[in-house]
Amino acid sequence: MAPHGEGSEEALVVQDENRKPISSILIIIAMQTEAIPIVNKFQLKEDLDSTFPKGVPWVRYHGSYKDLRINLVWPGKDSTLGVDSVGTISASLVTYAAIQALQPDLIINAGTAGSFKVKGASISDVFLASDVAFHDRRIPIPVFDLYGVGLRQSFSTPNLLKELNLKVGKLSTGDSLDMSPQEEASIVANDASVKDMEGAAVAYVADLFKVPAIFIKAVTDIVDGEKPTSEEFLQNLAEVTAALDHAVTQVVDFINGKCLSEL
Amino acid sequence: MAPHGEGSEEALVVQDENRKPISSILIIIAMQTEAIPIVNKFQLKEDLDSTFPKGVPWVRYHGSYKDLRINLVWPGKDSTLGVDSVGTISASLVTYAAIQALQPDLIINAGTAGSFKVKGASISDVFLASDVAFHDRRIPIPVFDLYGVGLRQSFSTPNLLKELNLKVGKLSTGDSLDMSPQEEASIVANDASVKDMEGAAVAYVADLFKVPAIFIKAVTDIVDGEKPTSEEFLQNLAEVTAALDHAVTQVVDFINGKCLSEL
Repeated sequence: MAPHGEGSEEALVVQDENRKPISSILIIIAMQTEAIPIVNKFQLKEDLDSTFPKGVPWVRYHGSYKDLRINLVWPGKDSTLGVDSVGTISASLVTYAAIQALQPDLIINAGTAGSFKVKGASISDVFLASDVAFHDRRIPIPVFDLYGVGLRQSFSTPNLLKELNLKVGKLSTGDSLDMSPQEEASIVANDASVKDMEGAAVAYVADLFKVPAIFIKAVTDIVDGEKPTSEEFLQNLAEVTAALDHAVTQVVDFINGKCLSEL
Repeated sequence: MAPHGEGSEEALVVQDENRKPISSILIIIAMQTEAIPIVNKFQLKEDLDSTFPKGVPWVRYHGSYKDLRINLVWPGKDSTLGVDSVGTISASLVTYAAIQALQPDLIINAGTAGSFKVKGASISDVFLASDVAFHDRRIPIPVFDLYGVGLRQSFSTPNLLKELNLKVGKLSTGDSLDMSPQEEASIVANDASVKDMEGAAVAYVADLFKVPAIFIKAVTDIVDGEKPTSEEFLQNLAEVTAALDHAVTQVVDFINGKCLSEL
């Protein structure tokens, strides 16, 4: 017999989920240089019998840390070109496949990003994104325009923010490392403090399956600064991953033993 | 016992595959308006017990036509906004999930597209793409730049081209309906005759799994013409889908009973 008020029962199930300690987290990282320090920190092991189908370059690392099962997924090297599979397509595919295979309680998308002088950012600052959106999907037809922007709130973590010394700002995602004037206008419209190449894609897929997601982004380059993004990015990548690694560790330590509603 | 020369055995398996009649085709279409005439033409039925996981809006239609099993997948309506889930992220996700679930012999990505006066195109022309690439993934770091462009050849179909009256040209893909000057420069660098929002994403995923893919694109708007793309696109969408429908039917009729090497 169908219970009375199915909607409210669903709401109760969600509430119950939010009150259980988080047991499984999925960390999604686009670049090997960003991933390896975190893999080492949590002593994660590579999954050699891959969870993922034959053909994809995606790499999963996994292990236990305190009371948490941690999976870290990196989209791997492009099989033809040998570079990290950055950008929204690979990020959305690994997020999809990892959610299906691993059913995580929480997703952490961590990585490096550009930021802006006008937002008061400096190299190695670490941001926790309050919202994510796209800045390179312009579809000037009513409603399609909103679909293109794809604004989503990240999972709200007021206690985590009180506890840790992270900046808060909006994140804007696009598939180019540089920024055209049209993309700049969209980034301004998104009121973004941080610019990356994956966040909003991870958020889109996480939202399809209602998996809470948070976004930790460490600043490798000041987009409105003096140096070209690609030069500044490469110069700072290794150093900034240390700041990223530190922030991810702090966040994971904070999450341990807590339920979603306590974050 | 391992056979002598595993590499050459693999090559033979591929050759054998290419000599078996094609039995299963997967048609990937981004918009409902483009999909429905083809669904009706082949009398495909909607899969109500979805092949795809709960949460995704993706729709599968399927049926038999002559000697072929046809699956047509459309990414469906965005569950919040109600518009078609256009663009590269949805296209890559449905391509991935449909390849995993359906193991097609051949993918046909069909849809509407923009084209260019300078390439001699007119509204309702139908192009078969020779190559596909991206025009909105600028990553100005050596090798990453090539990854961003993501140039791939579509499956070669010389006999199909001889038989059918289709134009041939290169296809360039990006997530915006309009075109910034930077994207225009990339489209010119890609030597593209046709501009869409999904093709190169479908090609990327098909290539991961070595599934042959072809791209049939019918022209709804002349990008370097007088009218704004969004206006011209909406005006011509219904009429051009008739040309698209006709071309897809011709291609499917040609494919029927043939093996990949005969296309």
